[in-house]
Amino acid sequence: EVPKLAAAAEYFFKFGVEGKRFRPTVLLLMATALNVHLPIPNSVPVSTELRARQQRIAEITEMIHVASLLHDDVLDDADTRRGIKSLNLVMGNKVAVLAGDFLLSRACVALASLRNTEVVSLLATVVEHLVTGETMQMTTTSEQRCSMEYYMQKTYYKTASLISNSCKAVALLAGQTTEVATLAFEYGRNLGLAFQLIDDVLDFTGTSA
Amino acid sequence: EVPKLAAAAEYFFKFGVEGKRFRPTVLLLMATALNVHLPIPNSVPVSTELRARQQRIAEITEMIHVASLLHDDVLDDADTRRGIKSLNLVMGNKVAVLAGDFLLSRACVALASLRNTEVVSLLATVVEHLVTGETMQMTTTSEQRCSMEYYMQKTYYKTASLISNSCKAVALLAGQTTEVATLAFEYGRNLGLAFQLIDDVLDFTGTSA
Repeated sequence: EVPKLAAAAEYFFKFGVEGKRFRPTVLLLMATALNVHLPIPNSVPVSTELRARQQRIAEITEMIHVASLLHDDVLDDADTRRGIKSLNLVMGNKVAVLAGDFLLSRACVALASLRNTEVVSLLATVVEHLVTGETMQMTTTSEQRCSMEYYMQKTYYKTASLISNSCKAVALLAGQTTEVATLAFEYGRNLGLAFQLIDDVLDFTGTSA
Repeated sequence: EVPKLAAAAEYFFKFGVEGKRFRPTVLLLMATALNVHLPIPNSVPVSTELRARQQRIAEITEMIHVASLLHDDVLDDADTRRGIKSLNLVMGNKVAVLAGDFLLSRACVALASLRNTEVVSLLATVVEHLVTGETMQMTTTSEQRCSMEYYMQKTYYKTASLISNSCKAVALLAGQTTEVATLAFEYGRNLGLAFQLIDDVLDFTGTSA
């Protein structure tokens, strides 16, 4: 309907600047690992429909991730992202803020279409965590800067919450037990935390993760 | 958890700057009008729980509205809002963008807790409409500026979509038929369009609606 908005929202999904697609890849692997038909009550049979629904989670997760990148780049006045000019530099802050909002609203519409309110809750909470983490990072006092606990909490909100909660969503869609869903969540949490720890260490010792 | 974020998000909910509360008022009146127990199949009995759920819709609608005001004020570099300094002027653009995102994510979490995916879809689509309308307004060509059709479409997205879809959500929660839900939607659409038409005319002939 509005070409400028569509172009802005698609900016980081184009070939060559789509990034590593780390989160969607992990989520589809998690789906493969979990879609084994187990003789548990109420388990959803493995089907192409289940796989398609889990793929939606992977897409939604990437949309939320890119939306947060767009807003973060406005906040940080960043010039580059994924080796090209940032969207705020190319199209201005206004379009970048709106494109982020647009991706979030599309993610929310896609989530609702999965017709699973627990999954909607999980991913909506992630957006809240991303904002909380970004604010914690922006407002860190010098005392907080020396607290490992504060750093880990901020890192969970900023990085690990998205992958851990979407791993859990993939498990819930597969009809797995609460126990398995919690294990999927823990896997995502540890992976997300480890990823960010390495990325932060590389700020001192290398280039980028 | 993060005091600065909470303070920013609450900024326009404080006594004296809460605005006219036009949307929540209309929604609660709509709820009263619709919560008549009709002898239709599957109708939800009138209960305090139903009223509480509809009140959540009124709250969510106001949160989405304020979130859009916060982002619009950043986009327009606005200095004042509701007779006080704009949040972007007081706390900066960064905090204003994050506070808007925070309100949207909280609205989404609250929506999910209503456990009605059709209602989640309706309100998620509204956020998409708000962004589309704002972008249409920002990118209007001189030809489009003379089109009444373009103006009405933009006005639906920017103003009427929120109140019309939330009126419909209130009807759906009451267990009303699709026909009644559509009438509630049309009522909100006409009210929203009329409100904005008057507000825009007042830009030329008066002060504010």
